[in-house]
Amino acid sequence: MGKKQNITFNDIAKYTNFSKTTISRYFNNPDSLTLENQEIIAKALVDLDYKENKVARILANGKTEFIGIIVPNLFLHYYSEMLDKILSTYEQFGYKFLVFIGNQNEENERRYIKELLSYKIEGLIILSHTIPSKELAALSLPIVTIEREDKYVCSVNTDNYMGGYQATNLLARHRCDVLIHINSPSNENIPAYGRIKGFMDVCAEKQLVHELILKEMGNGYESLQEQLNQIIENLELKYPGKKKGIFLSNDTQANVFLNLLMRKYGTLPKDYLLIGFDNSPISREAVIPISTIGQQIDQIAYEAVSLLVEQMDERKKRRPVPLKEPVHKVITPILLRRETTEKI
Amino acid sequence: MGKKQNITFNDIAKYTNFSKTTISRYFNNPDSLTLENQEIIAKALVDLDYKENKVARILANGKTEFIGIIVPNLFLHYYSEMLDKILSTYEQFGYKFLVFIGNQNEENERRYIKELLSYKIEGLIILSHTIPSKELAALSLPIVTIEREDKYVCSVNTDNYMGGYQATNLLARHRCDVLIHINSPSNENIPAYGRIKGFMDVCAEKQLVHELILKEMGNGYESLQEQLNQIIENLELKYPGKKKGIFLSNDTQANVFLNLLMRKYGTLPKDYLLIGFDNSPISREAVIPISTIGQQIDQIAYEAVSLLVEQMDERKKRRPVPLKEPVHKVITPILLRRETTEKI
Repeated sequence: MGKKQNITFNDIAKYTNFSKTTISRYFNNPDSLTLENQEIIAKALVDLDYKENKVARILANGKTEFIGIIVPNLFLHYYSEMLDKILSTYEQFGYKFLVFIGNQNEENERRYIKELLSYKIEGLIILSHTIPSKELAALSLPIVTIEREDKYVCSVNTDNYMGGYQATNLLARHRCDVLIHINSPSNENIPAYGRIKGFMDVCAEKQLVHELILKEMGNGYESLQEQLNQIIENLELKYPGKKKGIFLSNDTQANVFLNLLMRKYGTLPKDYLLIGFDNSPISREAVIPISTIGQQIDQIAYEAVSLLVEQMDERKKRRPVPLKEPVHKVITPILLRRETTEKI
Repeated sequence: MGKKQNITFNDIAKYTNFSKTTISRYFNNPDSLTLENQEIIAKALVDLDYKENKVARILANGKTEFIGIIVPNLFLHYYSEMLDKILSTYEQFGYKFLVFIGNQNEENERRYIKELLSYKIEGLIILSHTIPSKELAALSLPIVTIEREDKYVCSVNTDNYMGGYQATNLLARHRCDVLIHINSPSNENIPAYGRIKGFMDVCAEKQLVHELILKEMGNGYESLQEQLNQIIENLELKYPGKKKGIFLSNDTQANVFLNLLMRKYGTLPKDYLLIGFDNSPISREAVIPISTIGQQIDQIAYEAVSLLVEQMDERKKRRPVPLKEPVHKVITPILLRRETTEKI
């Protein structure tokens, strides 16, 4: 609106009678100036209505304050809530986020990483599963992954084993006749595999009758419904009249399972106990609120950014000491008892 | 990994025997070089393993290819799906997105805009409601808003009036004894107000018995449940045995309404017909799939970025012609008939 829109370091130097070098030091290393001189320059910026050009500043000091994020999609509530919490750390750390959606396309994700590198991001948070951690580690960039294969890079994950353990123990305390865990076949090197291991260990320890059902649920809601409907039919043939404690691998599945029973019986039959995983909104908003293992998403997000900031800060030191081994943080899950496991 | 990590224009110039100016033109205005010379330089970049530094390029030509986004939250599925679709337009338009979560905090959002401006964003997409469009227009930056007050800036919205009209007409065709629209009190200048207007107009045109219930639903799921439970009690007292056609302002509300009836009756009673709005996943994943008015989120996102790109491209012309009036695009909604309106 004013006459002179782009105030330069030259203008500030003239106005304050300092050298351009002094003005530049104010922006890039303010502690090298006396407090008094800092205040003179700060006042001049207001008087001149100086608008900071961070792009120019980046070129001067190399710090973009950018973090790249690659998230598989925002359709699953788990991812959108995680992204929400990561972006909200701006208030604590001041980093800005350049966000890409991977959509399970490995080649696209490689392009996105290249693009992010060309913008001189200082660090990268990856939630998508496509690119092996070995390849990520070779980028020589601070990286933190969340809930994916993480052998060669730092990560923050829920303690999935503990979650599986808690869920199975809750069902065991209700003296079910048979415990059942429904999941998809998955690789042992992803963190979520811990849910299966937790289930199996409790069943072995307590010598409980149990069944592990690993089945591809397909893409989308309709095929999930079909698969679970078939599982219910089989269970009713196999365990008629038995009290069944069912641990499903996520809340979306638990909700579909519950709805199928509701439509069949008009209520949740007494011989079914259900528990899900994630504490997604669907678990609370289901026709009968579903017991679940809650992931502390706000804490996972905070720890991920915090772990990344540590690495980024280290890099800015005169003699940075790189991490010898990737750091893997685990966050404790929380058991939420709701109506699908209430009758004891 | 190689010895020389940062290849400069100087290095490329030496390698190709071109001047630095020619190399610079290759990056900023390649068409000014012959195709042959372009190919020589392209080959040199591969040979030298040149890594593009877009930050440097921005300073040269002023084009950051950044678009800022401010979204209220990612908790509501409507927003997370919209963000997903906006980010995915990278594949068509190549713009990168710097994303902030507003969390309904007007002062924070002003700070975010300032931060975005300091990174020289070329345009801004706003989904949050806090800052008046008049203030946004004064930023003199290409802006597009989605589903919020938009008097002074360009926008893309669902045709909410048409959606309200369609929903009400569907209920009318089922010969309900009374039509009811449940919504929150809202300002006439936000696009979603059209849903109320569409409902009222159909009822007036067809002279239908109807009731408009405008009620604050509070924050969060529990208060929503409480409010809707009270509404159901009142409706059953007021219209016993009557066939009630109920149009709820979104799918989250429709799902809670349905669940309350299911828990009371074990099924959806024959004297209730329900329709929601948005086509959120919850409408499909409900215990009985809920009829709804679907917003074409992918199309809204595409049109929003496209409208923004037009304005950004105009600015890059030698004699840009600014828009005389803000452009407001509307996208047609789609009626989805599911089981909550099936019995005719």
